[in-house]
Amino acid sequence: MTARQRLGSFFDRPATRNFITAVILFNALMLGFETSDRAMAAAGGLIITLDAICLAIFVVELAGKIFARGPAFFRSGWNVFDFVIVGVALLPSAQVLSVLRAMRILRLFRIVSVAPTLRRVVEGFVSALPGMASVFLLMALIFYIAAVMATQLFGDRFPDWFGTIFDSAYTLFQVMTLESWSMGIVRPVMEVYPYAWAFFVPFILVTTFAVVNLIVGLIVNSMQEAHSQESDAATADYRDEVLKRLENIERRLSDRD
Amino acid sequence: MTARQRLGSFFDRPATRNFITAVILFNALMLGFETSDRAMAAAGGLIITLDAICLAIFVVELAGKIFARGPAFFRSGWNVFDFVIVGVALLPSAQVLSVLRAMRILRLFRIVSVAPTLRRVVEGFVSALPGMASVFLLMALIFYIAAVMATQLFGDRFPDWFGTIFDSAYTLFQVMTLESWSMGIVRPVMEVYPYAWAFFVPFILVTTFAVVNLIVGLIVNSMQEAHSQESDAATADYRDEVLKRLENIERRLSDRD
Amino acid sequence: MTARQRLGSFFDRPATRNFITAVILFNALMLGFETSDRAMAAAGGLIITLDAICLAIFVVELAGKIFARGPAFFRSGWNVFDFVIVGVALLPSAQVLSVLRAMRILRLFRIVSVAPTLRRVVEGFVSALPGMASVFLLMALIFYIAAVMATQLFGDRFPDWFGTIFDSAYTLFQVMTLESWSMGIVRPVMEVYPYAWAFFVPFILVTTFAVVNLIVGLIVNSMQEAHSQESDAATADYRDEVLKRLENIERRLSDRD
Amino acid sequence: MTARQRLGSFFDRPATRNFITAVILFNALMLGFETSDRAMAAAGGLIITLDAICLAIFVVELAGKIFARGPAFFRSGWNVFDFVIVGVALLPSAQVLSVLRAMRILRLFRIVSVAPTLRRVVEGFVSALPGMASVFLLMALIFYIAAVMATQLFGDRFPDWFGTIFDSAYTLFQVMTLESWSMGIVRPVMEVYPYAWAFFVPFILVTTFAVVNLIVGLIVNSMQEAHSQESDAATADYRDEVLKRLENIERRLSDRD
Repeated sequence: MTARQRLGSFFDRPATRNFITAVILFNALMLGFETSDRAMAAAGGLIITLDAICLAIFVVELAGKIFARGPAFFRSGWNVFDFVIVGVALLPSAQVLSVLRAMRILRLFRIVSVAPTLRRVVEGFVSALPGMASVFLLMALIFYIAAVMATQLFGDRFPDWFGTIFDSAYTLFQVMTLESWSMGIVRPVMEVYPYAWAFFVPFILVTTFAVVNLIVGLIVNSMQEAHSQESDAATADYRDEVLKRLENIERRLSDRD
Repeated sequence: MTARQRLGSFFDRPATRNFITAVILFNALMLGFETSDRAMAAAGGLIITLDAICLAIFVVELAGKIFARGPAFFRSGWNVFDFVIVGVALLPSAQVLSVLRAMRILRLFRIVSVAPTLRRVVEGFVSALPGMASVFLLMALIFYIAAVMATQLFGDRFPDWFGTIFDSAYTLFQVMTLESWSMGIVRPVMEVYPYAWAFFVPFILVTTFAVVNLIVGLIVNSMQEAHSQESDAATADYRDEVLKRLENIERRLSDRD
Repeated sequence: MTARQRLGSFFDRPATRNFITAVILFNALMLGFETSDRAMAAAGGLIITLDAICLAIFVVELAGKIFARGPAFFRSGWNVFDFVIVGVALLPSAQVLSVLRAMRILRLFRIVSVAPTLRRVVEGFVSALPGMASVFLLMALIFYIAAVMATQLFGDRFPDWFGTIFDSAYTLFQVMTLESWSMGIVRPVMEVYPYAWAFFVPFILVTTFAVVNLIVGLIVNSMQEAHSQESDAATADYRDEVLKRLENIERRLSDRD
Repeated sequence: MTARQRLGSFFDRPATRNFITAVILFNALMLGFETSDRAMAAAGGLIITLDAICLAIFVVELAGKIFARGPAFFRSGWNVFDFVIVGVALLPSAQVLSVLRAMRILRLFRIVSVAPTLRRVVEGFVSALPGMASVFLLMALIFYIAAVMATQLFGDRFPDWFGTIFDSAYTLFQVMTLESWSMGIVRPVMEVYPYAWAFFVPFILVTTFAVVNLIVGLIVNSMQEAHSQESDAATADYRDEVLKRLENIERRLSDRD
């Protein structure tokens, strides 16, 4: 057993995994405390030190894993995710850009890959996505068309909402979620363009219908999977049994003729 | 093979279809750029020229198809859609009316008839509509009755929301989507008519219940289709097999008597 | 055949029903025109005369039906509904009370009892209600408890929203529909009572969960009905057939022993 | 039969239960009247006296039950609930703290344990919760991560909405319910941080997708339970019957060989 293999098996041990899990959760707690002015005033140095220690543990863990597995390490999506998350924290600019600092809490998502129940839920979510791809494509089409139309129709008078295709797409997303669509958006637009409802009401009907169809598709898929897993095996066994016995009886009867 | 037939088969070729698809997507991109002031300032002439070229290609395609197919061309709904969309762009008034200009982006919907996955999604949506017709009729009835009542009850004091049947119908649609129904509409109305809630709360309960029933109907229909396609064929085969064999056994036994 | 029987069969004839249907729809149109100031200015006298003629037709129809059927007339809920609606229009005070005038449009609901497809939809809606009764009872309980609590907790400082149990129940209904619950209600309340979220967030979670369960119950019920109607008859027939034949075979075999 | 046993059987009698039910409902009515200034002005003394009598009955009932059952009384969750509710009303501070006074109406929930239909509904709700635990855990994770990120990104400029993790979690809950998410929260934030939509739109998509999956899971579970209860017993009986008979036939045939 080489040093690399021994290191690899060390990382696979339950004790190691539990320790890393604990460090992830502890680090999430520290990152939570960092948002509290009171906690930082009381023990800011300690919190930042503990965060740094957690980061150091992650760096050591990552370096160890890369050494143990070699290039194979980067074949797993979760490993790449870890590498990016930890790598980002090491960039000097990470001290500057508040967005990158805020993304450190994404480390907590590593818990998902560790806890089997959570992983199953996420895998269930992800496995539902491909079946929804064609409806998503259609909705992207509808959004692009509606955004171009809204920009051309209302962009001049309402530049904040429909000034560019991106503004329009955001506003139309808001309208699709039904948030303030009428009092906030369409009634003010209708004061300038009285027939604006003829654009927005069909848009709402079509997009909500598409969303409803997405959900119906999800339900039907889940139901079929649950249904087939449950009873189909028993049914197939029973049918094979019946047919075998019937054949048996027929053979015996014809043997005697 | 006449010239018309050769032209017809030319339009059916995959290469031709792919080329037209590419032109549709490229044209959608150009129409998107036209909404951007920066893009128009930088290369407005080029964008408008490319849009005109796309339009010219569509005109040639359409003229060719009409020549090749003759009156049969107009029997397909999508062909009529193409003809109207392209024809509108050729009207001189199309330069004037911004609504017609904005409708040019609807050309992008031609993609749906070309891509089989999208076409199947749209056909699935459309095939669900007839089963919902009677609920839609009932909702139209409820909306007409509620709009007449709201106009008579609240129209005098709230002309913006309930001045005419059309205003009332729009406001009631807003109320049905639950957008600002209370803080935006019903609370102000209740300051004048304290019992207005006795009109709006039942309206909300009835219409949302109708919408929920629409969705339930969609789910049950989709489930039944999915269910029957899947397992019914196998079950029918199995049952035929069992009955045939049982008859066989009985016949043999009676032959011997 | 007495005069009463002849009259009764006259009202059952399709031609009579179609005529009454036409009068209902025409009357609905007239009542719609009455809400339009322009239509009333142009032909107000004509519209009111036509409305009066429609009403006269309903009175004659109703009187004829009561004469033909006798007390049995009042056994049907729809007949009682007709009687009340038409009777209300004849009260002299009906000219005064705008609410009663507005209720005349409810006559249009008579269409539902005439059109079979609409009647089936309404019957489907109504048949779903008993299964939801216990959840409704629970929600009524939750609303009463929450309304009493909200009135005691927030009534003094927010009399418009929580002044009485009825105000609180209305506001809580608004919160349940998620309309402006946070920006409109809870954030202002939290400025006075910082822990108000501990009342409203659980209320939202519990009531929306109850609503979701109502919908799930509707789906499961519809599905079971649809499922059993479809395939159960065929399965029962097949099973009877198999068992009969197996018994047959066994009997023959034992006869020979 | 000891005095304790006689007392225990006294509390189990239907007449006693009905009396307690009536007292609970009557007390709920009194607590409702207490919120009305008019009712309190007219008969405040009577209402408070009747409330005190109800409370006295509960105290006697509770003391009797504790005496009758001994320590076993506290093994039932509902008994503990009763004890806490009644005990709280006896604390002298209960006169002071309006929150504790408002909680007296929670006594009405005792009705649930008494009425079997309501109890079944609540048990149905509660039995659905464990199946949703892993999705809830994932949502708690997403909320914690999003709250920490939002506090770090937007907390300095929008302390009311994102000042602390708790403020952020409340605001994100509001965003998840889609209440004023755009006009109320994200548009103001986008005036300072133009790319704020890149945080909130994915958050909305992910959390609503998780909620939809929760509901889908509820539907599939309810459907499976309903499905299996209904037809599986009949199917199993039939299959056993067929297999037994087939075996029978085979045995007879082989006996004769």
